[in-house]
Amino acid sequence: MKLASYKNGTRDGALHVVSRDLTRCVVVPDIARTLQGALDNWLEAAPRLQAIYAQLNTGHVSGELAFDPARCHSPLPRAYQWADGSAYLTHVELVRKARGAEVPESFYSDPLMYQGGSDAFLAPTAAIPLRDPAWGLDFEGEVAVVTGDVPLGAGIEQCGQAIRLLMLVNDVTLRNLIPNELAKGFGFFQSKPATSFSPVAVTPDELGDAWQDGKVHLPLLVDYNGTRFGQPNAGVEMQFSFPQLIAHVAKTRELSAGSIVGSGTVSNSDRKVGSCCLAEQRMIETIEQGAPVTPFMKLGDTVRIAMRDAAGASIFGAIEQKVTAHE
Amino acid sequence: MKLASYKNGTRDGALHVVSRDLTRCVVVPDIARTLQGALDNWLEAAPRLQAIYAQLNTGHVSGELAFDPARCHSPLPRAYQWADGSAYLTHVELVRKARGAEVPESFYSDPLMYQGGSDAFLAPTAAIPLRDPAWGLDFEGEVAVVTGDVPLGAGIEQCGQAIRLLMLVNDVTLRNLIPNELAKGFGFFQSKPATSFSPVAVTPDELGDAWQDGKVHLPLLVDYNGTRFGQPNAGVEMQFSFPQLIAHVAKTRELSAGSIVGSGTVSNSDRKVGSCCLAEQRMIETIEQGAPVTPFMKLGDTVRIAMRDAAGASIFGAIEQKVTAHE
Repeated sequence: MKLASYKNGTRDGALHVVSRDLTRCVVVPDIARTLQGALDNWLEAAPRLQAIYAQLNTGHVSGELAFDPARCHSPLPRAYQWADGSAYLTHVELVRKARGAEVPESFYSDPLMYQGGSDAFLAPTAAIPLRDPAWGLDFEGEVAVVTGDVPLGAGIEQCGQAIRLLMLVNDVTLRNLIPNELAKGFGFFQSKPATSFSPVAVTPDELGDAWQDGKVHLPLLVDYNGTRFGQPNAGVEMQFSFPQLIAHVAKTRELSAGSIVGSGTVSNSDRKVGSCCLAEQRMIETIEQGAPVTPFMKLGDTVRIAMRDAAGASIFGAIEQKVTAHE
Repeated sequence: MKLASYKNGTRDGALHVVSRDLTRCVVVPDIARTLQGALDNWLEAAPRLQAIYAQLNTGHVSGELAFDPARCHSPLPRAYQWADGSAYLTHVELVRKARGAEVPESFYSDPLMYQGGSDAFLAPTAAIPLRDPAWGLDFEGEVAVVTGDVPLGAGIEQCGQAIRLLMLVNDVTLRNLIPNELAKGFGFFQSKPATSFSPVAVTPDELGDAWQDGKVHLPLLVDYNGTRFGQPNAGVEMQFSFPQLIAHVAKTRELSAGSIVGSGTVSNSDRKVGSCCLAEQRMIETIEQGAPVTPFMKLGDTVRIAMRDAAGASIFGAIEQKVTAHE
């Protein structure tokens, strides 16, 4: 099924069930007022949401509306956890190669992951506020899962069973703040402003055969200023599956329902498919030409992130954002 | 005023107003069912909570109970943000000195901060589950604030005005997982399991004159296995005030109500006052004797973290935890 949270003046928005073709939706306050509420009580809520979803796909439901992504907040406008991996080692290899460093062998068996801020996400069509263009604003196209409760020490199979929903991500990054933060040794902080997610979150069964081994085997489509910038496949070179990434978190602490775990920037070694962030293009330029050519995002720039099924239909709706000055 | 969240089988517990002397409390569902609910709507909820608090301190309130810290969850059992600074540079200086490194000059003007997991905190008297004693379990005694909404780019004064509550913290750390994580460059992750907070959160006015310049000028009392281990003053050598730490977060993103911002391990340069974590004692041993002597926590070890006012009364109640094996 497909779920969205409409802006309604509250902090968490109003949970809506959305038709598979993203044309219609309906609010479901008798089941759960918010997506977090549904996730908190998933085993009871999910079958009831699924029943509404089935009705919506086969006919009409009382109170249904035309679905409008512009009215959507992030499926979880705020969440209790946003942990982002870096599972596409092509991306990591380029980062390292551009600065003349090797990828440590351990990176192929021990996932990279950082804890992101989760208290205030941007809506999927919200402007990206930029206080200082010198900070080097970049987009990062990713896939993420939303989990149920996961106990401390859970194994990979149990972690896989805890995957409730999938979303697309724009992990907005301030590249020029990263070197100083990495030098301090405490990881990313100011370099990771508010993240955005796709208008719609979907259960794994919506992906059909494209959901294999805990990975999404479809191209992630990233357009920059109206031109295709990248379309790497999110499944083929994902070094760590989502169940493995969740198990990385669960090694030393439990996860609560509604935790979001991200894939990291999707990246393929085939350079013909392009990139899901500007930094990667700049690294390729550095490797090939000695210096980056592509600038970071400017005021007025736009990014669009989406994914289509085998029949060409949008699965999650699109993240569509424009960079604007913050007064 | 003083607030606590009683365990009641729900994920967020039941908000209680607690008397100043920590002897009595009362549930306030007509004002807010949960602390997060009160924080989401603070300007309306706070005066009403304050009125109950005044009644509780001067007489009796219908429905009041004897206050029992063992029934408390963390004031926020789960939160949308837990961002922890490292504002006591004595601690940072010892870390560096023990490994023969200098403290970069920038550390005195640019706060260290990491993003912690906030989806599932431990209750103040909950056991600390340990899967592997070789991970090097340590406690870290800290102070933290809970904020209201803070806009992107807020200045220090505005950040100070957004401080709603204060709590004590046990920032549980797995020391032996840190070197590998720092080498990976993404910051702490598995090395920071679930954090614990004091039974009671208090408004800044409860500290009286001890709340000065956005710092808590009182000793933090840390007992390890029943013996006083440290009692450094949390105010005197805090390099960055809480408003400054909040402004560090707000530089590139807004904060939502209920965000927790921590001080880092409280530490004084006067070694006679002891330490708030085992690692610091081990660093002093390394500097003085060439190698650490004090081991990390073992199964069955206990830690107690509290703070007393000038008259000797407990302000926040005590964090009291025991290390237990996790099956």
